[in-house]
Amino acid sequence: MATESRDYGREAVDRHRETRGKVSIAPKIKVETLDDLSIAYTPGVATVCMTIAGDKSESFQLTNRANTIAVVTDGSAVLGLGNIGAEAAMPVMEGKSVLFKSLAGVDAIPICLANQSIDSIIETVRNLAPSFGGINLEDIAAPGCFAIEDALQNLGIPVFHDDQHGTAIAVLAGVINACLVTGRKIQDAKFVFAGAGAGGIASTKLLQDFGATHVTLVDSTGIISRDRTDLTPIKASMLDSTNPDNISGGMAEALRGADVFIGLAAADTVSAEMVSSMAKDSVVFAMANPIPEIWPDVAAAAGAAVVGTGRSDFPNQINNSLVFPGVFRGALDSHSTKITTEMKLAAAEGLAAMVKEPTPGNVIPWSLDREVAQTVAKAVAGAA
Amino acid sequence: MATESRDYGREAVDRHRETRGKVSIAPKIKVETLDDLSIAYTPGVATVCMTIAGDKSESFQLTNRANTIAVVTDGSAVLGLGNIGAEAAMPVMEGKSVLFKSLAGVDAIPICLANQSIDSIIETVRNLAPSFGGINLEDIAAPGCFAIEDALQNLGIPVFHDDQHGTAIAVLAGVINACLVTGRKIQDAKFVFAGAGAGGIASTKLLQDFGATHVTLVDSTGIISRDRTDLTPIKASMLDSTNPDNISGGMAEALRGADVFIGLAAADTVSAEMVSSMAKDSVVFAMANPIPEIWPDVAAAAGAAVVGTGRSDFPNQINNSLVFPGVFRGALDSHSTKITTEMKLAAAEGLAAMVKEPTPGNVIPWSLDREVAQTVAKAVAGAA
Repeated sequence: MATESRDYGREAVDRHRETRGKVSIAPKIKVETLDDLSIAYTPGVATVCMTIAGDKSESFQLTNRANTIAVVTDGSAVLGLGNIGAEAAMPVMEGKSVLFKSLAGVDAIPICLANQSIDSIIETVRNLAPSFGGINLEDIAAPGCFAIEDALQNLGIPVFHDDQHGTAIAVLAGVINACLVTGRKIQDAKFVFAGAGAGGIASTKLLQDFGATHVTLVDSTGIISRDRTDLTPIKASMLDSTNPDNISGGMAEALRGADVFIGLAAADTVSAEMVSSMAKDSVVFAMANPIPEIWPDVAAAAGAAVVGTGRSDFPNQINNSLVFPGVFRGALDSHSTKITTEMKLAAAEGLAAMVKEPTPGNVIPWSLDREVAQTVAKAVAGAA
Repeated sequence: MATESRDYGREAVDRHRETRGKVSIAPKIKVETLDDLSIAYTPGVATVCMTIAGDKSESFQLTNRANTIAVVTDGSAVLGLGNIGAEAAMPVMEGKSVLFKSLAGVDAIPICLANQSIDSIIETVRNLAPSFGGINLEDIAAPGCFAIEDALQNLGIPVFHDDQHGTAIAVLAGVINACLVTGRKIQDAKFVFAGAGAGGIASTKLLQDFGATHVTLVDSTGIISRDRTDLTPIKASMLDSTNPDNISGGMAEALRGADVFIGLAAADTVSAEMVSSMAKDSVVFAMANPIPEIWPDVAAAAGAAVVGTGRSDFPNQINNSLVFPGVFRGALDSHSTKITTEMKLAAAEGLAAMVKEPTPGNVIPWSLDREVAQTVAKAVAGAA
């Protein structure tokens, strides 16, 4: 691949050293005269403060909250790099901030927390809430991420764990078009997930909310089944609605006869033989990054009709950068206090509908298409 | 006064409603092509992350930490407005952010915390630290502010409570020139403070570090003296180095024969008679905002030779906006981990020295003078 020959890592380090981070503060007003100062700061600002003290909801009109969110991580599950900690997570959070602003006009403050305790993260985000119009939780490891997001749903501002729901929305959008292209009904299709972490579990739930009835999850130990004695509570709870055939074994057993593979796990974990064992004209989304579960050409040769990855250098990049800028743009525009299931489904349907005539090589919009965020935002705001 | 006739409060509310807050995010790099995205975000960013994971100090070179601080408040003591809470405090924090950027090029993120417990504030700031190159604590009530700042001195980045030290540095700078103008030695001068909160106590300590030997503190109950049974531990501890004549009573008793009055307390609490009872050619800094302890014309008529206030519409505005932008600029430039006493003294001396020929009407630079922050920054970095 052409992009492989370029050393993006080295270029990225050089560029980051040159710019010393990727986002800066831009004042919206000037302070060059005493009148400027008297309006931006004392004495005029006191009246603004007291207006908000009298009605806290005015903070969404009179302060940065109107357009500002926090991108919060504890650095425990950053990209495919694992638990690299707060300081090392910052370049990713700054990258998200750049995308939020560039794609959706959202001011996003990158915040990396020194503490990975669930209770401490919850308390810190609660403390931060009055400064923001929304919270994008990011790269927080499962299962802690579920408890953290759940505990923060009553803040009065949307709290959205992107690794769960951004992924789920992008996956569902791709699935909608891939099923259209391959002549499948989502209700009847057999789905197999590699990965039962944040993205896998949230994607399963959103697929089910959309109508999917047959989903089987596979983690690094094997199929999530009633035989397993090692399951975390969240994985065990997924058995209520998944693995309807009650099968056991590994990925080979799971994929036999399956219609759609959704990989959110590890490099090179799916073989050509496994893809060949799937139903005719199967759908393979191999989204492990940077090395997919199976390379696209291998999957296609083994019989997959639609192939997607998480990479920008192959067709059908299923990536949550298609989702998060528009979701928060829509939530801020509609003054939403939560991101509901209806909003997520609307985002996925809006994203899928952007592709006017889906083909095997084109089931999802391009992530830098400037219209994506606007479309998602409108869908989200409309469902709010 | 001309500025009184203008309704800055009303204008400020209108302006804030129009701009919806005062600061926004500006990306330092573009993401228009896949190559841009591969450098700012995945896959290139992974190498930046791992560079920092291998050496955390690289976060000060490769991320926003290089130039970004947080302005953190709990909204417990905002301007002269009191405990108005997090949401209502935001316009002031945004105003500081605008000044940080406009005057010193520092990116400052305004953060207002929902929780006023000392332990929770300490934990939250600890958690936030990896994202920032410094922390400006702001408008946090005494005595909690002292414990909070003390507990955060080992974060590896400067933590500076502006209401204490920003005020102290501005006061000392004004005192240096006022004593020059009135022919006093600071070592011999008798100082009286109105207010024994964050600003009063920090200013006393810095004045003493500079050489002052005779300081008497007065709070809303009266002179801080050994007779008092109602003193907080911090006020009681100040008796070790203040009130050398062991006097009791109120402001009238304190000011009799005093050389310098420094007001950080409440409107209209000093009378013309009290000023008349001070030493000849006294110095009166009446900095309560917006209504000073005594109006400048009244103080001058009563015999004060140098009069300053906290207001921009009178001569000699003693204001911490002269200080905080340059202090953090200097600390960031010198990679300081603390703001030491030496750095504070250097900032005050640098600020005072900017006034080439001090006169009674000009003992301190103008707060919007673009050279102030640079001068303070150089002094601070030089002492670091």
